[in-house]
Amino acid sequence: MDLRSLLESYKEGRISIEDAEKELRLDYVDSIGDDVLFDRARELRKGIPEVVYALSKTPEAVARIASSRKGLTLISKANACHLEAVKEAVPEAIIRYDCGMAIIGRMPETNRGKIGIITAGTSDIPIAKEAQIMAEAMGVECVIEYDVGVAGIHRVITPMHRMIEEDVDAIVVAAGMEGALPTVITSLSPVPVIGVPVSSGYGMGGKGEAALMSMLQSCSPGLTVVNIDNGIGAGSTAALISISGRRR
Amino acid sequence: MDLRSLLESYKEGRISIEDAEKELRLDYVDSIGDDVLFDRARELRKGIPEVVYALSKTPEAVARIASSRKGLTLISKANACHLEAVKEAVPEAIIRYDCGMAIIGRMPETNRGKIGIITAGTSDIPIAKEAQIMAEAMGVECVIEYDVGVAGIHRVITPMHRMIEEDVDAIVVAAGMEGALPTVITSLSPVPVIGVPVSSGYGMGGKGEAALMSMLQSCSPGLTVVNIDNGIGAGSTAALISISGRRR
Amino acid sequence: MDLRSLLESYKEGRISIEDAEKELRLDYVDSIGDDVLFDRARELRKGIPEVVYALSKTPEAVARIASSRKGLTLISKANACHLEAVKEAVPEAIIRYDCGMAIIGRMPETNRGKIGIITAGTSDIPIAKEAQIMAEAMGVECVIEYDVGVAGIHRVITPMHRMIEEDVDAIVVAAGMEGALPTVITSLSPVPVIGVPVSSGYGMGGKGEAALMSMLQSCSPGLTVVNIDNGIGAGSTAALISISGRRR
Amino acid sequence: MDLRSLLESYKEGRISIEDAEKELRLDYVDSIGDDVLFDRARELRKGIPEVVYALSKTPEAVARIASSRKGLTLISKANACHLEAVKEAVPEAIIRYDCGMAIIGRMPETNRGKIGIITAGTSDIPIAKEAQIMAEAMGVECVIEYDVGVAGIHRVITPMHRMIEEDVDAIVVAAGMEGALPTVITSLSPVPVIGVPVSSGYGMGGKGEAALMSMLQSCSPGLTVVNIDNGIGAGSTAALISISGRRR
Amino acid sequence: MDLRSLLESYKEGRISIEDAEKELRLDYVDSIGDDVLFDRARELRKGIPEVVYALSKTPEAVARIASSRKGLTLISKANACHLEAVKEAVPEAIIRYDCGMAIIGRMPETNRGKIGIITAGTSDIPIAKEAQIMAEAMGVECVIEYDVGVAGIHRVITPMHRMIEEDVDAIVVAAGMEGALPTVITSLSPVPVIGVPVSSGYGMGGKGEAALMSMLQSCSPGLTVVNIDNGIGAGSTAALISISGRRR
Amino acid sequence: MDLRSLLESYKEGRISIEDAEKELRLDYVDSIGDDVLFDRARELRKGIPEVVYALSKTPEAVARIASSRKGLTLISKANACHLEAVKEAVPEAIIRYDCGMAIIGRMPETNRGKIGIITAGTSDIPIAKEAQIMAEAMGVECVIEYDVGVAGIHRVITPMHRMIEEDVDAIVVAAGMEGALPTVITSLSPVPVIGVPVSSGYGMGGKGEAALMSMLQSCSPGLTVVNIDNGIGAGSTAALISISGRRR
Amino acid sequence: MDLRSLLESYKEGRISIEDAEKELRLDYVDSIGDDVLFDRARELRKGIPEVVYALSKTPEAVARIASSRKGLTLISKANACHLEAVKEAVPEAIIRYDCGMAIIGRMPETNRGKIGIITAGTSDIPIAKEAQIMAEAMGVECVIEYDVGVAGIHRVITPMHRMIEEDVDAIVVAAGMEGALPTVITSLSPVPVIGVPVSSGYGMGGKGEAALMSMLQSCSPGLTVVNIDNGIGAGSTAALISISGRRR
Amino acid sequence: MDLRSLLESYKEGRISIEDAEKELRLDYVDSIGDDVLFDRARELRKGIPEVVYALSKTPEAVARIASSRKGLTLISKANACHLEAVKEAVPEAIIRYDCGMAIIGRMPETNRGKIGIITAGTSDIPIAKEAQIMAEAMGVECVIEYDVGVAGIHRVITPMHRMIEEDVDAIVVAAGMEGALPTVITSLSPVPVIGVPVSSGYGMGGKGEAALMSMLQSCSPGLTVVNIDNGIGAGSTAALISISGRRR
Repeated sequence: MDLRSLLESYKEGRISIEDAEKELRLDYVDSIGDDVLFDRARELRKGIPEVVYALSKTPEAVARIASSRKGLTLISKANACHLEAVKEAVPEAIIRYDCGMAIIGRMPETNRGKIGIITAGTSDIPIAKEAQIMAEAMGVECVIEYDVGVAGIHRVITPMHRMIEEDVDAIVVAAGMEGALPTVITSLSPVPVIGVPVSSGYGMGGKGEAALMSMLQSCSPGLTVVNIDNGIGAGSTAALISISGRRR
Repeated sequence: MDLRSLLESYKEGRISIEDAEKELRLDYVDSIGDDVLFDRARELRKGIPEVVYALSKTPEAVARIASSRKGLTLISKANACHLEAVKEAVPEAIIRYDCGMAIIGRMPETNRGKIGIITAGTSDIPIAKEAQIMAEAMGVECVIEYDVGVAGIHRVITPMHRMIEEDVDAIVVAAGMEGALPTVITSLSPVPVIGVPVSSGYGMGGKGEAALMSMLQSCSPGLTVVNIDNGIGAGSTAALISISGRRR
Repeated sequence: MDLRSLLESYKEGRISIEDAEKELRLDYVDSIGDDVLFDRARELRKGIPEVVYALSKTPEAVARIASSRKGLTLISKANACHLEAVKEAVPEAIIRYDCGMAIIGRMPETNRGKIGIITAGTSDIPIAKEAQIMAEAMGVECVIEYDVGVAGIHRVITPMHRMIEEDVDAIVVAAGMEGALPTVITSLSPVPVIGVPVSSGYGMGGKGEAALMSMLQSCSPGLTVVNIDNGIGAGSTAALISISGRRR
Repeated sequence: MDLRSLLESYKEGRISIEDAEKELRLDYVDSIGDDVLFDRARELRKGIPEVVYALSKTPEAVARIASSRKGLTLISKANACHLEAVKEAVPEAIIRYDCGMAIIGRMPETNRGKIGIITAGTSDIPIAKEAQIMAEAMGVECVIEYDVGVAGIHRVITPMHRMIEEDVDAIVVAAGMEGALPTVITSLSPVPVIGVPVSSGYGMGGKGEAALMSMLQSCSPGLTVVNIDNGIGAGSTAALISISGRRR
Repeated sequence: MDLRSLLESYKEGRISIEDAEKELRLDYVDSIGDDVLFDRARELRKGIPEVVYALSKTPEAVARIASSRKGLTLISKANACHLEAVKEAVPEAIIRYDCGMAIIGRMPETNRGKIGIITAGTSDIPIAKEAQIMAEAMGVECVIEYDVGVAGIHRVITPMHRMIEEDVDAIVVAAGMEGALPTVITSLSPVPVIGVPVSSGYGMGGKGEAALMSMLQSCSPGLTVVNIDNGIGAGSTAALISISGRRR
Repeated sequence: MDLRSLLESYKEGRISIEDAEKELRLDYVDSIGDDVLFDRARELRKGIPEVVYALSKTPEAVARIASSRKGLTLISKANACHLEAVKEAVPEAIIRYDCGMAIIGRMPETNRGKIGIITAGTSDIPIAKEAQIMAEAMGVECVIEYDVGVAGIHRVITPMHRMIEEDVDAIVVAAGMEGALPTVITSLSPVPVIGVPVSSGYGMGGKGEAALMSMLQSCSPGLTVVNIDNGIGAGSTAALISISGRRR
Repeated sequence: MDLRSLLESYKEGRISIEDAEKELRLDYVDSIGDDVLFDRARELRKGIPEVVYALSKTPEAVARIASSRKGLTLISKANACHLEAVKEAVPEAIIRYDCGMAIIGRMPETNRGKIGIITAGTSDIPIAKEAQIMAEAMGVECVIEYDVGVAGIHRVITPMHRMIEEDVDAIVVAAGMEGALPTVITSLSPVPVIGVPVSSGYGMGGKGEAALMSMLQSCSPGLTVVNIDNGIGAGSTAALISISGRRR
Repeated sequence: MDLRSLLESYKEGRISIEDAEKELRLDYVDSIGDDVLFDRARELRKGIPEVVYALSKTPEAVARIASSRKGLTLISKANACHLEAVKEAVPEAIIRYDCGMAIIGRMPETNRGKIGIITAGTSDIPIAKEAQIMAEAMGVECVIEYDVGVAGIHRVITPMHRMIEEDVDAIVVAAGMEGALPTVITSLSPVPVIGVPVSSGYGMGGKGEAALMSMLQSCSPGLTVVNIDNGIGAGSTAALISISGRRR
């Protein structure tokens, strides 16, 4: 019963003042942040699929969650056991061993926006794929350039050329090791860049800390970061920038 | 001499093949990233003012840089000594003791976009002001809401209401201590959020690390972060999102 | 206008359905967490004074806040400059140089509960005083035992004897260096213990990290901790345990 | 032989002065902290079961300990091997694969108190179950609310409503990732809250450090913390608060 | 088509000005850093083989890369699975289980220079072998001294004697634990020393951090370091010093 | 009244059984660890002076403590303000600006033992002096060798020669920077060595962490460590080894 | 040929001055630290067995070293694979699965000294056994007390009583978790104490860092520490204190 | 008396066998590492001036050392007080307030080699000057390029061009913030590069850790690093590479 009907029912004596009061109180809880204020946020956000982090869950728990979802759902940070359990529970799921993900439900058209995704090396590709799947699941097209190192600086120019030609709205840059690529890309980019540090190194700083710190220290205007290996977060934010920029 | 004139001069014999070759080679260096490829990047980026970090420089050095700049220049992370030296060197500079900044040159109209800036507590205000001055220096209007704590969750609703009504394109959230506010804001926001951890606490994690880690751990799609106390970076990226989203 | 009056006004036609609806919507924002649900929380919490952390604020800002408060307000982590500025702005404030605090407004009777406060060494006393002032400001009496080392284990027995005789409801233990005292106290205590690590050491772990980690590692049931030097947090929680235990 | 009987035996000449003296000296060691001073502590504490941490022990060692205990004993942080070894050694033990625990002996009635337990996400449930089993083993009833995220702030209101209606004496909040939930809960809670950081994330701060630091930085009066994943400690302290508050 | 031919073709009318211009623009990208400026760098660097880090790649990915390479390629940080996959894909590859490496292609003569390699203990040998293989792959001879501890200081003298007699141009010193050996060697060495911290210890600092910090803190002129376990980096730099010093 | 007298008084009826019982109970507290068990510990330990750490105390507090002590007391980690306050309060105190100490009371003869003290560089001398004063205050003679670097390995031989000739019972080695000296000394020493890391460096590990970790990683049998800059702890332990070894 | 013979041979013309000179030069290298200066060190140290750390070596490498040793050799930090390989290679070796060690060669009489070894909990026992085996291998008797917690402070008194009665020369205390036991023991001990932090916990500080920092922060004169889990180092130093103290 | 004379004196009976033996033994100590083995090392190293780190010394101590030196001596990491004290003690010293150094004695001709020095930003200049002064004090010429950012990648090309034309033997690159420049430079450089991380940033990683980790993670063959702000170390090693490469 919506607010207006409730008021009318009360006025017409179909419900008592006590019931109206109680109903209104209960309604408070449901309505906060939902019905009243945030229509626009909800509108945009309804295109964001559920993401289930498999990492700290058992394969059974992940399979159970997977089979109970109705809308588009992504399983991420899943190992082989998780993925096999999902496969068995939801045979039609798309299993992506290459980036530890599973896709439950139907992917949308990618016509809500366009972003770029760049990786520094081949070890960064699984994280880049997380970002890509997430963005595509939000209806955003991805322009991909893999294996653009920073060591040979001229190698960044062709990919950047393409990003500009494709007119992307944001660029995700996944980089492990010393993590310098996002800084270089940002200096050449007309659109915001989201750096994803990748845990592909070894020794001091090799679990992504060096890359994360590098990106945080960078003074290029336009660069923000997400946590180490958080391809999902980078992809969703880049997609949100694109969708929200094109909504006008 | 541009490329076409050069070619014509050579064809017409006004310059030798050696000179043409040399000229072309020298031109390479100048032209990379400038004249050829990145017109669009440059167009957008030309609205970004120079930022001089005073922190690790002497007052004299900062004053010398300040007086030598021609375009709009912001001095940031400046202490009282830096600011007084700038004041003396550039009397018309705007000195902002409240956030350790100085503004050299003329601020533009703020008609290129609109962003929101929210702080968790009063200690976060100087960093929020950094973000505001930077965004305004890029021609972007700022909608400000100070002192929105996370402890009383209902206190976030009114500010978010205003952000949505004002139709901002991105929101900067500055928060020290436990840094939970950006996560909460992001869950309610239709536009991307940029978290700025602030070094306003004490004890373990009090120099902004707790806030930074919290924001990095947050799983809200749409939240990215900049380094601790980096108001400039947050403001410039939010402004870039707004400008670049409105360019279409 | 409260909910019932609003409904009646509407029924009696004194206000239109549109106004009723609008009034109800506006009311949502105010009422969340305040008028509807949390009467009991608010009742207990209304005895908790405001605490203003001076650490990352200017003396002027602290003085301005101090002079604008109406209820009981504590200034903490204040240095000499902060305290002098408060003294000037609010002459009747109680200035506590010994623990970096100022008290604005009138302290209540201490009849709502009783807690114990124990320190390991003399360097821990300022933090213990923070806890004491906070608890007293919440109307809770404090039984104090200073300088109970852990090195001479028999020295803990007399203070614990007193704590038990005084029938305290919770014990705050402030300890720097190796932070072993809370573990020992907890093993002897019939009531919950709150450990406050103190930054009184030097060398590795000397800024309170050793003490914090020790307390976190302790396996004594009944021991919880607050952040390094957070006397306010320990005092308020101990007081809350006492008040809430005695409310029955 | 108790003290009075000893004195009388000596007076009556049944034992020599040397024997009396020796007996008294030996008695010192036994009596410290036991017979003389701490009756009340012991009374309360006698309801606390033994807890055996399996983590750094071999399955055989854990099984041996399990089969030698007479009173109620909890095995915690046990992997599948530990649990199978316990099962074999003590067939009547209750094996809890879902939270890595085993229960040896008989659980008491839960009539000594009542606490609440809240988790932020499904990954935090095993730690919450540790807290629940520990509290129930101390005779305290648990009111459980799982999967209360912080991202959708309105989702905290219903669970808090229930906590207040059930009149719990303390609330355990288990939260990984950014660890913001305990801060939010504390701001709404009339009773003390114990935060348990959970190691369910990844990347920087993902082993529970971000959650721990967040909780330590929180300035909500009434919040204290235990170590990462220490459900046992949180459950036992919450139970102690409840039992000790109800003893009056 | 090189630059001069292009200019002539245009002059002779064989290509239009538009084509000449376009050709020149495309050429920019290829030529940066390659054809114009860095002949000498390229000359020296052409002796540096490709190195593929297996650590964060799947065995299949490593095997695929291995079989696609034409020039000399080293696989490093490979586990047994990686090495077996390489063996199967490239039967003629040299498999080095002793240091987790595989060599694809033909090793050169070692006549371009000479370096020394010293280890502190037997646990440092695999890392030393990485350095050796890398240097030999660059055509540089290695003088090896294993198991030169720092504890018995006189044990360093014979190896140093040999290094001087062999007239090496740089010395790689691999050391785990406390990492003191490079400091001692540097004080006795006429040539630059490159320290490689090795992750062979345990406890605090045992993953190579103690060794790394020791080497960074050392004040011996002539000592620089590479990351923990980075034998490849140390070997290649030492080789570069030797080759570049002998080029005169 | 001692135990035997008490028993006799009771037997003779001079005191009641209630009084005897109470007296015995009170006696428990006093006697634990003091009168009964630990005569030998107390005997040795009675030569250990009180040490007051000035670091986290105000000058007034330190002066007050200084003037209230009766036995030999050392003030350590004192800055100029602390020392001047002590000077004024206790004019006969010996003030040591060179190592931040003050000596209150009379130093004993140094005839209870003999230890060695070695420093790596001149920056380590103040910490070495802390160790020396502490050992001398315990009646132990110190054989001093300053500025024995590790870089020139032959420089350690003469000082070690002297240590052996002087027949010291333990050696304190203070070393900052890379902290390698204690490892080298231990390999040459017939007696236990106590390493004191010194916070004399800069950059990564420069606050003594590199030195501490080096010493912890060292595998020389006979080396133990104290915390960074803890000259007092090293001196007292070395002295205790000497005194306790010579007591036989 | 010893020095005197050499000189005589030369004088008698049996060798030339060139040969004498060369012989003397070669002799330098051998004699440094060995024949000339350090007889006493060598005397004491000759009782110290070789220790081989298996941790970062392959089972084959460990077995090869084990079978090549002639004197008493201890293998430590060995896993089951290491131990089985040793067993096969050296059938008469004593294999200690309980503490990851193997003993090659014959253990001496334990008549050179006496030390105490105390553990806080059962998880610390394997490390304590390392210390025991090392000390016994040096000919030193060990007085053992396991499972002396710090939580029940009276439990430390009986073990200390025994240590004093047995007249040990040094005490090794192994403690994980919060690591408070060594501080308490040191305050009661007439002899030096060596703390061994043990990595038996979990959560923040649980890998032995909390215990290590606690021990480093402790201000009890007489306590020094070794690295986390370094039972060998603690045992050898305690044994050295005992042997060197009894040599007089 | 040299070795040969000694032998002859003995043969001729001018000294006894005892005296010869004693003389030879004493000679051992002096000769180790000096007269016998390391002529070449000493030859090269004799051009390395003494460096006195002022940081952890008092101004008086630094002045005293400065006035007592005879050869070329550099004071580094000196603040204004240190420098004034040196000025007063040694009026002819060259005082460099711009990089916290003082030069005592006469600088040599710079004809022993040539190196390059590059900085990323103006904040890195003082550290670059340390490197320059150190290299020049070793007789090596420096080719300087300041303020080569990494953000605009084309800005690195001109400086690298110059480095190659000047034919430097090694390049020092000082960089704070994200520290990416050395990686980029190394990829373009024919000679070894030494990275110096500079502590010019703020926030996480801002004390040079981000820059240090970046450089350690870099996989460019040819890059090694020194500690944060260690311009002296970088300059001396680069100079050593140049001198030792040119010695052939």
